[in-house]
Amino acid sequence: MGNLLTVGSVAFDTIETPFGKAERILGGAGTYISLAASYFRKPVQLVSVVGSDFRQKDILMMQEAGIDTSGIQQKTDEKSFFWAGKYFNDMNHRDTLETQLNVLGTFDPVIQESYKSCDYLMLGNLSPAVQQLVIERLPVRPKLVVMDTMNFWISSFMDDLKIVIENVDVLIINEEEARQLTGQYSLVVAAREINAMGPNIVVIKKGEHGALLFYHGQIFFVPALPLEVVFDPTGAGDTFAGGFIGHIARQDSFSFETMKDAMVYGSAMASFCVEKFGVEGILNLSSEEIENRVKVFRSLVQ
Amino acid sequence: MGNLLTVGSVAFDTIETPFGKAERILGGAGTYISLAASYFRKPVQLVSVVGSDFRQKDILMMQEAGIDTSGIQQKTDEKSFFWAGKYFNDMNHRDTLETQLNVLGTFDPVIQESYKSCDYLMLGNLSPAVQQLVIERLPVRPKLVVMDTMNFWISSFMDDLKIVIENVDVLIINEEEARQLTGQYSLVVAAREINAMGPNIVVIKKGEHGALLFYHGQIFFVPALPLEVVFDPTGAGDTFAGGFIGHIARQDSFSFETMKDAMVYGSAMASFCVEKFGVEGILNLSSEEIENRVKVFRSLVQ
Repeated sequence: MGNLLTVGSVAFDTIETPFGKAERILGGAGTYISLAASYFRKPVQLVSVVGSDFRQKDILMMQEAGIDTSGIQQKTDEKSFFWAGKYFNDMNHRDTLETQLNVLGTFDPVIQESYKSCDYLMLGNLSPAVQQLVIERLPVRPKLVVMDTMNFWISSFMDDLKIVIENVDVLIINEEEARQLTGQYSLVVAAREINAMGPNIVVIKKGEHGALLFYHGQIFFVPALPLEVVFDPTGAGDTFAGGFIGHIARQDSFSFETMKDAMVYGSAMASFCVEKFGVEGILNLSSEEIENRVKVFRSLVQ
Repeated sequence: MGNLLTVGSVAFDTIETPFGKAERILGGAGTYISLAASYFRKPVQLVSVVGSDFRQKDILMMQEAGIDTSGIQQKTDEKSFFWAGKYFNDMNHRDTLETQLNVLGTFDPVIQESYKSCDYLMLGNLSPAVQQLVIERLPVRPKLVVMDTMNFWISSFMDDLKIVIENVDVLIINEEEARQLTGQYSLVVAAREINAMGPNIVVIKKGEHGALLFYHGQIFFVPALPLEVVFDPTGAGDTFAGGFIGHIARQDSFSFETMKDAMVYGSAMASFCVEKFGVEGILNLSSEEIENRVKVFRSLVQ
């Protein structure tokens, strides 16, 4: 088993879907990633920042799930990152109603001594400058560095982004973002261009259409589970990343075989995530529930 | 091995893609379906209609492929069905530039004696009234009736469509059309509503995202092959249907296992189709090429 360090936002979300509205619930990429990863490797070390408005009950819940929260800075004079969004009826599109960077605007990631020997580093979606700082502050390079990013950074911070991308082993990115980043429509060609930017391995998330792993010239595909109801897609991509890196850290391996299984575990975790509001779907799962869901994924293509 | 009867258009297409333009090339659902199916079960019986402008060389090519063309009526005073379309850069969307129904406008399908004992009937995309006539003109019900349809019939001929759908065993339909037909966004729910309309089995095509088989409460998924270049998507859905029904007729079985394999064969044939213009990609394939492509599909998810 390898040590796992995650960096990502811990935040409040207000989410509106056709099924209802939830105000100021726990959210953030770091939260979803570490909660999902905690089913595979405990503790998950989490570097993040919150404001004075952050709730002790959420910290306690994360600790109970197996997350080491000692790397979460709390700024007493600022507020936590806040995002509000509204999903359309098809659940595949959303409007961002409000983004308050707050503490994230000046986030200076502190890597405590006990985190510096991490084997696996998961850089959740954040400013590429902050992602790069984390890499630089680790005295020894981890065995595997995985990063996620999003369209906002591709549109406006391409130079910063290219620097981080050059330094990571695995880029996790969604379909549209892969096309935006490379200008290539074919995902096969886009993945190859991303390889040329640095990462040897590329994971392209296709939302309700599954995900592709491009691994040194080999391709693996995992479908998304056809679901009756998608209740709230928020955090599904981060949850996928958490299950993916969690399984890799648990196995302490990044062979093609391990990564294929990691894709299935990531997809299984994401399928739990979308069934409920916010993080609710990925709380208190039993390992039996996870293994059964993995079996459903495997039977879907066998 | 079971007898296979196909009904569908045999036509001329003018196709423009970002890679070039082809004028008045051989096309039509019946053509793609029977060419694809001919790799699995020869002869494929084809009921269709063409005009006086139809070319003898195309008939000869179809015969050489193993298609029994004696069921294709030729109307001496009319022209063949003609369609012209233009694909956008992403190859997933197209504009129809021109549709000339010509002989299809008055198509009265003639089922010759030797076709009446068919075991498997594939109703290609056509007016639902014509599809229903074919079913009624068969004195003995085939073992399995499969139909394809499209958005045009759903929008404007829903009453006719419902009558045919009630009489078939398998409906092959694309993702948007399944949603349009049922008003349900979730494909799981849409498939269930289609079951209630008649067909026990539903195949939902998702284009570059693969295809789903809903079989008596069980679900099977086959991905599409991630391709470097999609040259021309015209006919890919019909080619899928041809490979699907062709394998079923070859095995003379419609068990879940056979249908899962049929989904993979259909997808493999469709992947050949999109690599070249028109029907070119599905001509002169060796069984080795097809089996190798099927292996690529299987390795993609294993």
